[in-house]
Amino acid sequence: MKLLLKNSRLLDMVGDLPEIKERDILIDENKIAKISENIDEQVDKVIDCNKNIVMPGFVNTHTHLAMSIFRGYKDDKGLMDWLYNSIFPIEDKFIEDDFYWNSYGSCLELIETGTTTCNDMYFGTKYILKAVEDSGIRSVVSWCITDNSIGNKPVETIEYSEKFNNDKDSRIKVFTSFHAPYTCNPDTIKLVVDLAKKLNTGIHVHLSETEDEENQIKEKYGKTPTEYLRDLGVFDVPVVLAHGIHFSSSDIEIIKNITGGISHNPISNCKLASGICDVINLRNNGIKVGIGTDGTGSTSTLDMFEEMKVTAYLQKIKNMNPEAIKAYDVLKMATIEGAEVLGLQDEIGTIEVGKKADIIIIDTSNIRFTPINDIATTLVYLANGSDVLTTIVDGKVLMENRKFLYSDENLVKEHINQNCKRLFK
Amino acid sequence: MKLLLKNSRLLDMVGDLPEIKERDILIDENKIAKISENIDEQVDKVIDCNKNIVMPGFVNTHTHLAMSIFRGYKDDKGLMDWLYNSIFPIEDKFIEDDFYWNSYGSCLELIETGTTTCNDMYFGTKYILKAVEDSGIRSVVSWCITDNSIGNKPVETIEYSEKFNNDKDSRIKVFTSFHAPYTCNPDTIKLVVDLAKKLNTGIHVHLSETEDEENQIKEKYGKTPTEYLRDLGVFDVPVVLAHGIHFSSSDIEIIKNITGGISHNPISNCKLASGICDVINLRNNGIKVGIGTDGTGSTSTLDMFEEMKVTAYLQKIKNMNPEAIKAYDVLKMATIEGAEVLGLQDEIGTIEVGKKADIIIIDTSNIRFTPINDIATTLVYLANGSDVLTTIVDGKVLMENRKFLYSDENLVKEHINQNCKRLFK
Repeated sequence: MKLLLKNSRLLDMVGDLPEIKERDILIDENKIAKISENIDEQVDKVIDCNKNIVMPGFVNTHTHLAMSIFRGYKDDKGLMDWLYNSIFPIEDKFIEDDFYWNSYGSCLELIETGTTTCNDMYFGTKYILKAVEDSGIRSVVSWCITDNSIGNKPVETIEYSEKFNNDKDSRIKVFTSFHAPYTCNPDTIKLVVDLAKKLNTGIHVHLSETEDEENQIKEKYGKTPTEYLRDLGVFDVPVVLAHGIHFSSSDIEIIKNITGGISHNPISNCKLASGICDVINLRNNGIKVGIGTDGTGSTSTLDMFEEMKVTAYLQKIKNMNPEAIKAYDVLKMATIEGAEVLGLQDEIGTIEVGKKADIIIIDTSNIRFTPINDIATTLVYLANGSDVLTTIVDGKVLMENRKFLYSDENLVKEHINQNCKRLFK
Repeated sequence: MKLLLKNSRLLDMVGDLPEIKERDILIDENKIAKISENIDEQVDKVIDCNKNIVMPGFVNTHTHLAMSIFRGYKDDKGLMDWLYNSIFPIEDKFIEDDFYWNSYGSCLELIETGTTTCNDMYFGTKYILKAVEDSGIRSVVSWCITDNSIGNKPVETIEYSEKFNNDKDSRIKVFTSFHAPYTCNPDTIKLVVDLAKKLNTGIHVHLSETEDEENQIKEKYGKTPTEYLRDLGVFDVPVVLAHGIHFSSSDIEIIKNITGGISHNPISNCKLASGICDVINLRNNGIKVGIGTDGTGSTSTLDMFEEMKVTAYLQKIKNMNPEAIKAYDVLKMATIEGAEVLGLQDEIGTIEVGKKADIIIIDTSNIRFTPINDIATTLVYLANGSDVLTTIVDGKVLMENRKFLYSDENLVKEHINQNCKRLFK
């Protein structure tokens, strides 16, 4: 299957400055085969980009896909009240249908707002994975382990890791995962580290999200959460560390040497009042920082444009410096730097020949896009997920002109609403 | 002309809790004539709301409409560098066409993202006002005076105040305006106060935006900017105070007694690193706080949904308390409380019989709106301006199903692009 994108204004996210190039892009199967000014070739399908912006799809480095039913549910509450009284009692009732359909809804929301890769952590992963497969999105998936819920998660992690991680061309990758330092004792964490080493894969974990976490771990183990994880060998393997807000300067020295990076989740961090991640300091120390939405429970939207905006706003106001971060840096965090955090930088995150064809087309015909003085500031400070016209993952056009080509949106909505009726009754 | 909205899920913004009511709404000329469960009446036009959300249009309490051409232009810069090296030299070259078409573009952007009233401050106001009139939006307009640019602004303020303010039914209201404490000496400010008193209207002014402003005024006059304005009689008339970030506790005692209120501009305040307005403290002191976007130069988008989100995020993180502000309070700020700030609470800001018909319909068919667990959190944390389907101002359907009915969007875009070519060459 050959697909040709004509008349694009390409922002390939290669290089240190944003540059728009008028290019055609040839996609052969799941890869970018050619980028050139005028491609005239026999293909199976042509999409005329009409001079709209074409860029790499976003890499959402931290999701909980099955949580879509919690959108706006019991919002504006403190974390512990919210978790223990609103979220956990409902999650306890989840069945196969909830994991599958709720996740399918999240996948469609991601695709529709321009995300082509997500990095998910939850339980019921077998069914989430099925939704990921059926929706067509690219994803790293993981079975999130806590002290009280090890069960058959290691077994399934091994089973699916063998299925997907050995296939170099697979859209799905399997990571290991434990929930957080404060929900996992040393034995649990060692189990996950051993599993990651055995499977030659990474670990997805929440780290340094709240001050409370810092205090709890210091009290229990006499060290910071980051030191706690280091001493258990967590950083011997690639890691995706979600949040990373309360690192001490000696923690930073540890984190500087990890493979992988941080997933910054600014909206969740605001809504739950967790704090503001020091993105500038992390990046100045050479640490890779991607952007994530967290679950729909805490963030309400999986739109990476919203996260990009808030990333920039918070860094400027935290540092009381309007030059603290540039829009183009934020775009990088949401694309190639996110890919680096997941270890997928050779496959995705930029538009280059040989890379997987994960591409979005952004409609700039709306009056809001008049004028475009600067492509990076326009994309970060103006655009939103509803401006995404077309989303291509792994060479497959999942959404074209805002219509899903392979998913029945209404069926997904129906099932989610049915799940809600049962769960919230 | 009678217009009937059928099958609405109405959030009327009346009362202390968000409540969805299934209602029909009858509009007679420019007013809401009837709200009832089933209205069956001969009318000129029916709009089927298809169970979408119907709510009052947003009140944007601080704009600079003619600045649309500065969208994303020389962004990520410090305020003074940005103003003196990027903005002022271009503004100096503005001609009639720039004021008119650039403002027309902003009006369309506002209408398209659900704002039905704006409160504008700029120069070239005669031409801006023409764009406001032609676009159909409701607006308070003002001629912004500084020490160096008094010119014929008082004369024009009087002329247009007599034209519009005496007509109780007018969509346009005229305020007086001076730029800020740091650009106006006491004589200039007294001139504006006298003008406001004479015309029995209000004053729109920037106040307490930056720490630098506080320091400058204290050094020059030995008092805070708020005290400086009080001593010149500014608060003897209704005021809209844009920003209000650095008030001292004694300033708050002064502000408690004003007629009018504060326009909170969170995105501009983040992008220019001005600081975070203490919205919670102001509102706890009974001070009305509306929301504004500021000009497209500092904010990039005039979408009030974005401002609502950031209002909530900033208050939660500033107070390190996820319960600091509720989504419904933010919705109030963006509607009825904004109307109160402008003194228009008897005309707009809620959907009630007898009020002007300023109404928006929000499309909830998108997968992102599945499920809707809470109407207020859904609107504030999820929805964006692109979800606005239809916008009605003063009983006139300005946009229906995302098409402008009375404005030629392409013509406006063409003119703005021409202006840009001339100005930025």
